[in-house]
Amino acid sequence: MSQFHVYDTTLRDGAQQEGMNLSVADKLEIAALVDRLGVGFIEGGWPGAIPKDTEFFQRAGKELRFDNAVLAAFGATRKAGSEVGRDPQVRALLDAETPVITLVAKSDIRHVERALKTTPEENLAMIRDTVAYLVAQDRRVFLDAEHYFDGYRFNPEYALACANAAYEAGAEVMVMCDTNGGMLPTWLGEITAATAAALPGARLGVHCHNDTGCAVANTMAAVAGGVTHVQGTMNGYGERTGNADLTAIVPNLVLKLGLPALSGDKLAELTGMAHAIAEITNIAPQARQPYVGYSAFAHKAGLHASAIRVDPDMYQHTDPQFVGNDMRMLVSEMAGRASVELKGRELGFDLAGNNQVLTQVTEQVKDLEARGYTFDAADASFELLLREALGLLPSYFRVESWRTISEVMGDDGPGASEATVKLHAGDRRFVATGEGNGPVNALDAALRLALIEVYPELEAIDLVDYKVRILDTSRGTDAITRVMIESSAGSMVWRTVGVGPNIIEASWQALTEALVFGLIQLEVPVR
Amino acid sequence: MSQFHVYDTTLRDGAQQEGMNLSVADKLEIAALVDRLGVGFIEGGWPGAIPKDTEFFQRAGKELRFDNAVLAAFGATRKAGSEVGRDPQVRALLDAETPVITLVAKSDIRHVERALKTTPEENLAMIRDTVAYLVAQDRRVFLDAEHYFDGYRFNPEYALACANAAYEAGAEVMVMCDTNGGMLPTWLGEITAATAAALPGARLGVHCHNDTGCAVANTMAAVAGGVTHVQGTMNGYGERTGNADLTAIVPNLVLKLGLPALSGDKLAELTGMAHAIAEITNIAPQARQPYVGYSAFAHKAGLHASAIRVDPDMYQHTDPQFVGNDMRMLVSEMAGRASVELKGRELGFDLAGNNQVLTQVTEQVKDLEARGYTFDAADASFELLLREALGLLPSYFRVESWRTISEVMGDDGPGASEATVKLHAGDRRFVATGEGNGPVNALDAALRLALIEVYPELEAIDLVDYKVRILDTSRGTDAITRVMIESSAGSMVWRTVGVGPNIIEASWQALTEALVFGLIQLEVPVR
Repeated sequence: MSQFHVYDTTLRDGAQQEGMNLSVADKLEIAALVDRLGVGFIEGGWPGAIPKDTEFFQRAGKELRFDNAVLAAFGATRKAGSEVGRDPQVRALLDAETPVITLVAKSDIRHVERALKTTPEENLAMIRDTVAYLVAQDRRVFLDAEHYFDGYRFNPEYALACANAAYEAGAEVMVMCDTNGGMLPTWLGEITAATAAALPGARLGVHCHNDTGCAVANTMAAVAGGVTHVQGTMNGYGERTGNADLTAIVPNLVLKLGLPALSGDKLAELTGMAHAIAEITNIAPQARQPYVGYSAFAHKAGLHASAIRVDPDMYQHTDPQFVGNDMRMLVSEMAGRASVELKGRELGFDLAGNNQVLTQVTEQVKDLEARGYTFDAADASFELLLREALGLLPSYFRVESWRTISEVMGDDGPGASEATVKLHAGDRRFVATGEGNGPVNALDAALRLALIEVYPELEAIDLVDYKVRILDTSRGTDAITRVMIESSAGSMVWRTVGVGPNIIEASWQALTEALVFGLIQLEVPVR
Repeated sequence: MSQFHVYDTTLRDGAQQEGMNLSVADKLEIAALVDRLGVGFIEGGWPGAIPKDTEFFQRAGKELRFDNAVLAAFGATRKAGSEVGRDPQVRALLDAETPVITLVAKSDIRHVERALKTTPEENLAMIRDTVAYLVAQDRRVFLDAEHYFDGYRFNPEYALACANAAYEAGAEVMVMCDTNGGMLPTWLGEITAATAAALPGARLGVHCHNDTGCAVANTMAAVAGGVTHVQGTMNGYGERTGNADLTAIVPNLVLKLGLPALSGDKLAELTGMAHAIAEITNIAPQARQPYVGYSAFAHKAGLHASAIRVDPDMYQHTDPQFVGNDMRMLVSEMAGRASVELKGRELGFDLAGNNQVLTQVTEQVKDLEARGYTFDAADASFELLLREALGLLPSYFRVESWRTISEVMGDDGPGASEATVKLHAGDRRFVATGEGNGPVNALDAALRLALIEVYPELEAIDLVDYKVRILDTSRGTDAITRVMIESSAGSMVWRTVGVGPNIIEASWQALTEALVFGLIQLEVPVR
């Protein structure tokens, strides 16, 4: 019970959010990011119940190597009246082959009787049997006690009986869940204290939802009451109003309470990670999000501007650098030569002392970000920009023009897209027409067709991901579009970005940059 | 001290939010809505300091007739070393002619010395003089004690001295402000209790910011500690991470604690008001917002659908009708006949017993979801599907064909998109060409152009949001695309979805469904 538990359920409970739809690849990518942050446990999903989650665990075993986290599978106790060894859901949990299994069980006697339609005794037996069975298979078992707080308020004896059943059968943690999210911190704090007093020495956990706007605070109240295992999701994703937001809880634990919530020293990457995860979920980050939001440390200038510059600590509750965010004065958009220099170094370009390039790139990034670009997740586009400023950008080809046509006959007829690209490469002019499932796919085909004779190395480059984000959504179809393309060649992976009011132009930009960067990576000379 | 104070500062502190820009007319409109909710006090702005606010108070005196609220003007105490009767800012406060004046004053001795650059004694005199002067002019005076909690932690005697100075001079409330927003509920609760003990009988207030994600909970903790005056903003607008969100605090006070926070009985209009205010501020509402968010009472259907139908209170922390919101069942991956029936009822279609339609629609939803559709967030597309099965889908127009062309000259040249739509409506054939920033924008223009003569009602329909999600991202630019369009007409809002390998075809589908659904909502007959 030495280490404090931070338990991430973005992939399971967070994925319940309305409109969220994560692929297995998305989930693997998010898991890697959350592990990097230094969280102790990552819940991957509900194997057996959700086919995608079953696949996740199969692939996770082969593809994920965690530095910090332990993987957990989530599932229910055995069914009422069944034998635990023959329960297919329990079988699926074992098949997931995770060190930790988190079992959800009822702890509100009303839910036992009205939703589960079984007896209070059988529910206790279901907890006892399933925990013991899994512990005997060498699993660490955590119990998520559903509706714990509501249940405790109605019948504390029964809620505690569920907890006791779990602990006696070998569960490591009993997690008190505010499943409906209706708790206030004072209520939750009292129940936590009473529970801790009734179960001396047991490790207690908490799992909150934000229905009263108190999920983070409820979690903190539980910690104040003795809880040492907190569950939540990145960016507070989740059903209804969302789960407790780990991007606020973790810095609260570390910076405000000085608790050892993370392994390693990666809190300063929190903001970047939160945004990278938002890119994967394709849910626009909230500017007002605590700690990691774009506006979280933004101060209107004016009267206080000079005071803030002299003594920023008087006007901010913590140093934004601790979480990888920046203080911003809203008079002028800030870019930061320091971060450009840092990023350059990360990519292998020493810009220290090269003031002209530093200034130019900083200005350019500032300008582009104001127009909707983001280089958080598009290192390749940033490197191309840097290379251009340094005179290190090879000119592989020169585009004369391009055009796409998409048409459909009838109300629901089959559609067709084609694209024509005209360009110069290797001292020759190429005109190529490609067809595709859509205009961007057609452009990709035409561009490759036009270049392949001079640069056959392009065969090795695959586009593996294509994401679109509409910025400034208030403008309907006339909005600004940001396109992110992920490409790979062998084991190398890179991302490029394009922005503009025309989705096809934005895609074209990300597409050409993807190929140029790939050619550079493959060390192909200009021909 | 009978009535509990709810004090709205949307127009002053909320307006500090990055990117928010309210006109005087906007402010008057918001004030009328907040008054209607039954809030006790509305802070209109800072007269004298902000010209727009000076104008607001001039117009408010003539144009606003509050049923419930009392108007407050916000400003600072007299300047250090000046005479209160000659201070132009204090003069401007009187000129605003509000019954209440809220004075902001320093209560953290470090800020007195380092930001105000005056002595602790002079700061106390500034509080005393200004409060007394305004009270003598028949104003009710509230004191916002800036940085109160940080100040109290550093030097409690001085923070209390500021409070005492205000009360002795006649202030009605001393409002403890967590100006930097760094408090946790336990800390804030302790300081509140200590302050209440030191100032028996005095009315205490609280003003929180959300920098630790605890603004709502901090406010509730202060109430638990004896505070009877709470400040906040609608939708939690405000600088940085925002202010304490009254749309969560007010229902917490009323529904959870049974406190008389509102005059009248308008809590059931909260959701509508929150959204109306979001329309005025032009800031997209957050779906996950507690109580009033679009997703706040949305449940994924599937396994629990039947349980929820029997006993919704088991799965929600309060009745959404109390705040004017609705429970929604999300037609999602695990769609069964029960959830289709439930969803149908929600949309006003009784499918009970209509087994043929139930089966057909359930099968269709399953098939479409397997192809990448999601009806979670696209009620309108689901209703169109239902109407088609029921033979209730009007045929407003018939499409013959459409085509889009996008082209760009040069490597980085300007782009152009155009679209041509051929369709039949009102027994006539229309051919229309539209231009746009991109192919979808051009299609939207061409489609409206072709239809406007027969259906001029389309003028009332706006496309307010356009989202693109690439599914199966492993296939690069050849992936499946899902487009979501949000449309509005007056206060009605609806969402449609389109899916396909070609982003333009998917967009076209969502676009045409958006217009068809809008025409149905506007009760336009087929012509």
